[in-house]
Amino acid sequence: MTDSRLAGVTVRVVGTGLLGTSVGLGLRARGVDVVLDDASPAQLRLAIDYGAGRATAPDDAPALVVVCVPPDVTARTVAAELSAYPDAIVTDVASVKVAPLEELAAAGADLSRYLGSHPLAGRERGGAVSGRADLFLGRPWVVAGHDAIPYRGGALVEDMILDLGAVPLEMTAEEHDRSVALTSHVPQLVATLMASRLVDAPEAALGLVGQGIRDVTRVAASAPELWLQILGANSAFVAEILRDLAADATEVVRSLDDLDAPGARRALAEQLAAGNTGVARLPGKHGQDRRFSQVIVMVNDTPGQLARLLTHIGEIGVNLEDLRIEHSPGAQIGLAEIGVLPEVELRLTEELASRGWRIAG
Amino acid sequence: MTDSRLAGVTVRVVGTGLLGTSVGLGLRARGVDVVLDDASPAQLRLAIDYGAGRATAPDDAPALVVVCVPPDVTARTVAAELSAYPDAIVTDVASVKVAPLEELAAAGADLSRYLGSHPLAGRERGGAVSGRADLFLGRPWVVAGHDAIPYRGGALVEDMILDLGAVPLEMTAEEHDRSVALTSHVPQLVATLMASRLVDAPEAALGLVGQGIRDVTRVAASAPELWLQILGANSAFVAEILRDLAADATEVVRSLDDLDAPGARRALAEQLAAGNTGVARLPGKHGQDRRFSQVIVMVNDTPGQLARLLTHIGEIGVNLEDLRIEHSPGAQIGLAEIGVLPEVELRLTEELASRGWRIAG
Repeated sequence: MTDSRLAGVTVRVVGTGLLGTSVGLGLRARGVDVVLDDASPAQLRLAIDYGAGRATAPDDAPALVVVCVPPDVTARTVAAELSAYPDAIVTDVASVKVAPLEELAAAGADLSRYLGSHPLAGRERGGAVSGRADLFLGRPWVVAGHDAIPYRGGALVEDMILDLGAVPLEMTAEEHDRSVALTSHVPQLVATLMASRLVDAPEAALGLVGQGIRDVTRVAASAPELWLQILGANSAFVAEILRDLAADATEVVRSLDDLDAPGARRALAEQLAAGNTGVARLPGKHGQDRRFSQVIVMVNDTPGQLARLLTHIGEIGVNLEDLRIEHSPGAQIGLAEIGVLPEVELRLTEELASRGWRIAG
Repeated sequence: MTDSRLAGVTVRVVGTGLLGTSVGLGLRARGVDVVLDDASPAQLRLAIDYGAGRATAPDDAPALVVVCVPPDVTARTVAAELSAYPDAIVTDVASVKVAPLEELAAAGADLSRYLGSHPLAGRERGGAVSGRADLFLGRPWVVAGHDAIPYRGGALVEDMILDLGAVPLEMTAEEHDRSVALTSHVPQLVATLMASRLVDAPEAALGLVGQGIRDVTRVAASAPELWLQILGANSAFVAEILRDLAADATEVVRSLDDLDAPGARRALAEQLAAGNTGVARLPGKHGQDRRFSQVIVMVNDTPGQLARLLTHIGEIGVNLEDLRIEHSPGAQIGLAEIGVLPEVELRLTEELASRGWRIAG
């Protein structure tokens, strides 16, 4: 508890939803003095009860203010904090960075003390109840540098990020918004667009659902209210990418409509190949760009079965690179898909089979 | 080995790739007499070496022929088998069902002995090497009934499906093709279209990649050659759904381009809500439509850690409904996302924490 980079500093957290509460809990766990505030007194009391920090006192002098409110009220809250604490550095955690910066500049706020940031640690659940001290552990946390803030002004923000166990990544607000449009906001919409095809799907079709469509549509379950705000605040970059995607989709439809037209099959093949190329660029585990072999093992649907399997894998001495469980509709059996380095696949398969496990393809 | 529904019957498998080899291995494991054939003598010898069946003999009299060749040569192979074995029932395993049926009808084949089928058990890897006796265990296997084959003609096909541990589902060829267009072929293209946005993505953006885009794009890694055939053979149904999706995407772009236009935010909100509704229709584990609570636990990246976690979960007496492992880029730590019934979430969280596990949000 004594290794905090923020020892002796008071940090003020404004907004005690999932992120604010988690920031408070994480800093408190390191012994940092955390002051909480929230527009809702009930929400504030709850976060204090959870141990995320203490109530504001008249003589508080926070060196760092962390604004953790919804995107559409972020800029005005940051501006208010900059005025209220003229010696403090103020950051925010909104998932868009250009809009708040522009809004603050337009309002004549003191940008020499504002450094926006964004932890990539959102979850589908919100509220103080879901807050966790370890929410940010190992996650990237973007710091959106700009020209108005001096270099040393960013130190407290980086200290907080490191205290919370996250990995600071420096980029401009525009780089950030363009990046998350691609890696988060458009994928969200793509999942939504695919999932909405299922609204009127016949029951029989739903019986044929496999892991593919489950994966493609999973994030479509997220809360529309939050996503409306996020998409609204990043609409230009999102629209640009989605427009290209829709044009490609229309091109694929054109190919499918007349596959014997000159170039149609080739266009479709090139689209599929581009998909291969794109997905291969996603960083692998620990940033390695490495592909794993899959070993698929049947597991009965009883507690302890999977633990037994993983104990055996540990005994065999093979490291699990990835793991997922798949259940077939209508079957009282599951498949454990185990990702391992290609060089150990054969040995693992043989040793598991010799211990009585049923290996699938 | 004596519980086969096909005892005393010879089954002929034509095509010894992943599916044909797996059918052979699965039936051989139940003691069924399996004869293999393949256009490639080397491929055939390999499958025989793997124990998927024996070579053809002059006096073979198969009661059932299973055609496991690529989609674009399925119909002609089925026609040849119907002629060569005038007493046999012939099925195939191609992932489209209308095109082969129409092609066979046009060629004047004896449809009273043809019953197409499709096991939903494809994997990204092919070849006899990947064949597994248990490939079909617990998987749906569509039987595409039509009017020309009498009821009793289907019995052998269903016996084979049950022998392989799969779950037979009866539907028409058109129902099948329309269903897989929605649940498999369009999701494949959507993943491809999203993944191809990554081809020119800046490295910085790739550093912000989370589980969302990984899930959305995972199947985009599949082999273009096979998908060209599948999409080509189901182009009308796929184009119909993708056309609607592209129109919705264009509508979303229009909303994003001018969010303050009357109705723009509402249109976007309704699209997001439709995605919620659609994804909620996906059948849950064992066909239940039940949502699970997520408990997220930190695991160090060492063999045996996960096994220890699952052993603890077993000791606590909680059944794992779902499990996935997530690794953060740059971090030597992983997150185990555990799906459990909502009513046990709190107890599991508390008991794991008391055993020293770090719970994340």
